[in-house]
Amino acid sequence: MAHDERLVARVLADARDLVRGEIAELVLRRRATGYGPLYDLVADYPLREGKGLRPAICLSAAIAAGGRTEQALGSATALELLHNGFLVHDDIEDASTFRRGRATLFADRGVPVAINVGDATNILSVGVLLENVSTVGVRKALLVLREFERMARESVEGQAIELDWIAAGTFDLEDRDYVRMVYKKTCWYTVIAPLRIGVICGSPPGEGRPTEDELLDLVALGFHAGVAFQITDDVLNLVADEGAYGKESAGDLWEGKRTVMLLHFLRTVGAADRERALRLLTVARPDKDAGEVAWLAAAMEREGSIDHGRALAQRYSRKALELESRVLGPSRDDDSADYRHFLREMLHYVIDRTL
Amino acid sequence: MAHDERLVARVLADARDLVRGEIAELVLRRRATGYGPLYDLVADYPLREGKGLRPAICLSAAIAAGGRTEQALGSATALELLHNGFLVHDDIEDASTFRRGRATLFADRGVPVAINVGDATNILSVGVLLENVSTVGVRKALLVLREFERMARESVEGQAIELDWIAAGTFDLEDRDYVRMVYKKTCWYTVIAPLRIGVICGSPPGEGRPTEDELLDLVALGFHAGVAFQITDDVLNLVADEGAYGKESAGDLWEGKRTVMLLHFLRTVGAADRERALRLLTVARPDKDAGEVAWLAAAMEREGSIDHGRALAQRYSRKALELESRVLGPSRDDDSADYRHFLREMLHYVIDRTL
Repeated sequence: MAHDERLVARVLADARDLVRGEIAELVLRRRATGYGPLYDLVADYPLREGKGLRPAICLSAAIAAGGRTEQALGSATALELLHNGFLVHDDIEDASTFRRGRATLFADRGVPVAINVGDATNILSVGVLLENVSTVGVRKALLVLREFERMARESVEGQAIELDWIAAGTFDLEDRDYVRMVYKKTCWYTVIAPLRIGVICGSPPGEGRPTEDELLDLVALGFHAGVAFQITDDVLNLVADEGAYGKESAGDLWEGKRTVMLLHFLRTVGAADRERALRLLTVARPDKDAGEVAWLAAAMEREGSIDHGRALAQRYSRKALELESRVLGPSRDDDSADYRHFLREMLHYVIDRTL
Repeated sequence: MAHDERLVARVLADARDLVRGEIAELVLRRRATGYGPLYDLVADYPLREGKGLRPAICLSAAIAAGGRTEQALGSATALELLHNGFLVHDDIEDASTFRRGRATLFADRGVPVAINVGDATNILSVGVLLENVSTVGVRKALLVLREFERMARESVEGQAIELDWIAAGTFDLEDRDYVRMVYKKTCWYTVIAPLRIGVICGSPPGEGRPTEDELLDLVALGFHAGVAFQITDDVLNLVADEGAYGKESAGDLWEGKRTVMLLHFLRTVGAADRERALRLLTVARPDKDAGEVAWLAAAMEREGSIDHGRALAQRYSRKALELESRVLGPSRDDDSADYRHFLREMLHYVIDRTL
């Protein structure tokens, strides 16, 4: 559990509520002037209960940098929209049928509609970013757009790396291959960009604020925290109960997803078990045998692959914590203290989940 | 044939070459720093031979407004990229297996890769638009971004309307339903936005140039020209030979696409033939009978539905021509005369194709 669980829960809930309100209002506006049924579908994923992690990081970073919530609210909303647009497309790409307790959009409405809704969601996020001009001025609005472009580019590159592994049936991968993929696919849009965008929106006015160095430090911090976050998510997917975690148990094994744990297992296990695992992994999901999936989960545990994942996540978490005090600056006793504290607690939250 | 066929061909070819050069350079740059294999696929569609219509309209509008090619080249490149990103997604949504003489991307590489490549192409276009700041300044760069957001939004709304017709099996539609869908899905990104963005980039510096009224006139002009263009395309799809037109003959009937001709036929034909047509249209493409497709094409001709389409296209073309002299201003004897002339010829080109 996080050291200050209540603070983390409150900041997440506040950010989620604020951003959901923005999205609901935006969808109403678009419905009024555009083709309504499209926007009902655009609103579907964002209004299902998500963690609100990205908006919370963005808003907290803005306040920790000395700014106000209003300055970063548009950007936080756009982050949440883009995240959901990606999820709609990801669910098709991964053939996922289940998202936040309900059928995925493509499973419900078909692939064509889902592709178009994902595109519409991404376009909506650009619309929100263009409105930033009135809250943070032209210069920062353009800086934030650049961050979004970079973040989205890293995400599709990370996705391309993973899709190419799948298409080629590649399983001979080192931890560093995985880490590079996750740096692009997850870290940028889950941690790095929310941090950088929050700091850009919240930092005091004036050319050159924040500095290039400050923004680079946030890449390093977000990278380490993001890798820890993703590995932890993958560990939980393997070991958590269906009920407690909200996703199906060992869904990643059914999907054949390359995780550090699976890659470790395939590198270290004997030839016979390796062959048995690969036979399972390369079979299409509906044809997979539940007994074999259970065998693989247990074999990975025995082989020390789960522990390998936990240890790697902790290594990245600790490095993130080291960076954190330098990058986010010393604690101050002002209005921003809570949000600075939240950002720290988020790192602890990631670590503690791995234990 | 257009009145000045050589001019049209030259302006199209010049625009195509310029933009292809930009895209090739951009892809090289992204390859150098990002995940290379993704950008090979991003370059695939843009480097297949397209008409180059959108860049040609954009560049010509910039020069007709008194500007230079360099001021609009980034925007024209972004238009072409976004067009191709949409095509990659459209091909999945329409289950099209054939594009510019080769297999569509999803048919070749699968749906997951194609969705991601479409997203990457769209993101690349945003990157190009952000570089506009250095060529047209901050104010115009933001105006152009707003145009892109509007254009993309109209496109996905038009696509949503059409996808909803397909999902619900709706064929009871009036010309005005079709026109509204095409206004959103085709006119905005094929004519309206290229015109407006070209004029924004090429107009003399100064706040409030071009004026809101000038930009609104371009919506009317682009709407009429765009509807004429799309209906003409649909007529050619029905009547052209396979070889001459470059697409399969009557592909729209195989696809069950709602065109003004088909909708007219279903509104006017007797009950028995209507039932026979609907049976064919609601059957999945691979199960369609070639004899029935040929019957429908001939019946539509007999029923006067092709003539109805031609007449409607001509009505929109003539209205566009009326608007054109008022909106684009009188001919002047300067460097921009050729490009002004090109924009006029494009309208004639659309009309003449329908005859």
